[in-house]
Amino acid sequence: MDELRHTQIQAVLNQHGIGAWLGWRPDEIVLTTGYYPQWGVSVCLYPRWGNPILFNPALEPDDRLPAGLDVRHYGWGVSADPWGELVAALQTALRERGLQDEPITFRKVASQSTPCVNSAEEPPLPTNLAQLLEGVSSGGWVEADSALLGLYLTKTPQEVERIRLAHQVAAVGIQAFYEHLTPGTSEAAVAAAVESAIQQQMATRPEVQYARGWAFVQGGANAIYGGTYSRTTGRRLEAGDLVMIELGVCVNGYWADITRTGVTSGAALSPAHQAMFDAVKTAQAAAVQAVGPGVPAKQVDRAARNWISDRGYGRYFLHHTGHHVGFRYHDPGAIINPTSDLILQPGMIVTIEPGVYGAELGSGCRIEDNVLVTETGFEILSDFPRELTV
Amino acid sequence: MDELRHTQIQAVLNQHGIGAWLGWRPDEIVLTTGYYPQWGVSVCLYPRWGNPILFNPALEPDDRLPAGLDVRHYGWGVSADPWGELVAALQTALRERGLQDEPITFRKVASQSTPCVNSAEEPPLPTNLAQLLEGVSSGGWVEADSALLGLYLTKTPQEVERIRLAHQVAAVGIQAFYEHLTPGTSEAAVAAAVESAIQQQMATRPEVQYARGWAFVQGGANAIYGGTYSRTTGRRLEAGDLVMIELGVCVNGYWADITRTGVTSGAALSPAHQAMFDAVKTAQAAAVQAVGPGVPAKQVDRAARNWISDRGYGRYFLHHTGHHVGFRYHDPGAIINPTSDLILQPGMIVTIEPGVYGAELGSGCRIEDNVLVTETGFEILSDFPRELTV
Repeated sequence: MDELRHTQIQAVLNQHGIGAWLGWRPDEIVLTTGYYPQWGVSVCLYPRWGNPILFNPALEPDDRLPAGLDVRHYGWGVSADPWGELVAALQTALRERGLQDEPITFRKVASQSTPCVNSAEEPPLPTNLAQLLEGVSSGGWVEADSALLGLYLTKTPQEVERIRLAHQVAAVGIQAFYEHLTPGTSEAAVAAAVESAIQQQMATRPEVQYARGWAFVQGGANAIYGGTYSRTTGRRLEAGDLVMIELGVCVNGYWADITRTGVTSGAALSPAHQAMFDAVKTAQAAAVQAVGPGVPAKQVDRAARNWISDRGYGRYFLHHTGHHVGFRYHDPGAIINPTSDLILQPGMIVTIEPGVYGAELGSGCRIEDNVLVTETGFEILSDFPRELTV
Repeated sequence: MDELRHTQIQAVLNQHGIGAWLGWRPDEIVLTTGYYPQWGVSVCLYPRWGNPILFNPALEPDDRLPAGLDVRHYGWGVSADPWGELVAALQTALRERGLQDEPITFRKVASQSTPCVNSAEEPPLPTNLAQLLEGVSSGGWVEADSALLGLYLTKTPQEVERIRLAHQVAAVGIQAFYEHLTPGTSEAAVAAAVESAIQQQMATRPEVQYARGWAFVQGGANAIYGGTYSRTTGRRLEAGDLVMIELGVCVNGYWADITRTGVTSGAALSPAHQAMFDAVKTAQAAAVQAVGPGVPAKQVDRAARNWISDRGYGRYFLHHTGHHVGFRYHDPGAIINPTSDLILQPGMIVTIEPGVYGAELGSGCRIEDNVLVTETGFEILSDFPRELTV
């Protein structure tokens, strides 16, 4: 049990007069219990007092459940009416707490959720899930999305440790990236090597029960589009290409989001591309240095954007400087951009990722780190190499 | 344009008195246009007459769009009000066809959709998507989920060719699986090798623009759970282990779903495990041979189940024999089980996947092929090795 997180969640429920939160998206299960769901049809009943209860499908493995968590099963996978069983079990639990007549809340939309263990398909939830869950309390459903999403903004020390582990795994992927920047290697082969190195960390680190990477490698002219979309192709790298990797990593349900830009061996980087890279690298470091508690996010954005603009690349840096990360590849919450109202607070983990891309430039580059705001400043969770070659 | 699919879709719309279908899930975009979305926020307006229109976000790449498709863009990624732009663009298109006062339909739930190019997160759709889409026509929304899902059941010849390509890519993954069944290799390393081989097909076959595999490798005692959940761990294979791979493969938006069971080198399989494997292999072949047009699915199930039961493994074969596949890892539609009402029809593609698993058995095995129902019988799309070693 993460006592700090527990206190935060129940404070939100009590402030809003809500008897219980029914979390059902995989990232909600991770946030409320620390458990990363296998099937994606788990539901966490978080009451405004007492401990949460996780309702898992009958076919869920039981060897990775957090110690001490109250876990109950319903018949998904073995029963003709699993959802009826789930509703009945939720009602029983609410009655146990005397909450059966209090309003409940839950998020109704699935979009922007993290995938579960099997990311090849979205979970087989019933089409009438919202109706089913609304029926568990006579107190009705109330919308509290903004308060629920607010819980994602700062991470507890225990969560930071788990997100740190995701970054240790990501480091291995980034190392594989640099090792494969040779002429004739395809973007697909580089991406495959990175993802392979990440997945194999399951066999190397006992604390890594699940590890998957999504590597998007764009080299040479393909990197022109690195600020528009992330996509790996079969293109073979050429000597002296700038090569970008955009990398999402999930370890046990916690996320890292890293970008590096390297150069293919066999030829020197062109002076123009070297200048572009240098501008981005310095701008990114300046923005990281600007991170701290109480700092307006727009000031962080400005640190990167001013440097890039002063070097003449301003019109090629068209996206935000960063976003929250940890429970998902992209956590909810205000982004870091020129008009952001966000004030950084201890426990926030944000990406710092300026980039420059353009057809006229012939390529593109971005450097992205994940930075923890501390009580006194910042800590770079992804403090691995960010040179052109390693 | 796939004329057969076009005719089928418009027949459904006209039968139900629906002016247009707004497809927005990635598999709906593949089914209606053949295009696999990058961002997952594309919408296809399929009118009851005339050609469909694909609404893509401004940041979507344009180099992989099907020839001749009417594609329009809305400002997602560049505008302050992309969804307002989308709604306005949809309304304009409906007016162009004179359909602005006719009922529209669309699926309201995201669950059980296929992921888009970036499967690390579900698409960033707005939380009020259903409300927004309902507002595009004064004719209101009507529910037609069952008719829409019915479109998934039979594949057109053009779709079969695309699904065939997914199987050619899957074959490379299965080959990598057999090559890595050596003692000391971790399940994670086997899975990584399979996924790597699949991803690299993007650089080998020009027609493969996107290839990703999800390999779940369960060896030795872990295969006991192969019928309960699919999960790769860090466990290292031991000599003579039975090893199962459950493999989902997506190529350009079309899917294969394959299982093979092999044995780790270095020791002979135990006689008990050999007998179990032989029973499953023969049962699976019998069920495949039973496939044909007009055949009741329960008869196919019976062919596998009777053989397995007669050999004493009946109580260890606790799941269905198969399901539809092609637009997703698991397509909608009636499954193949003892009580199925499904009658097989030409153009259906179904999995045939009996399996036997149990703690008392010490392991488990399954063999899964994807089988096309033809006018005269069947064709195995995954006709690659299904021996214990290759």
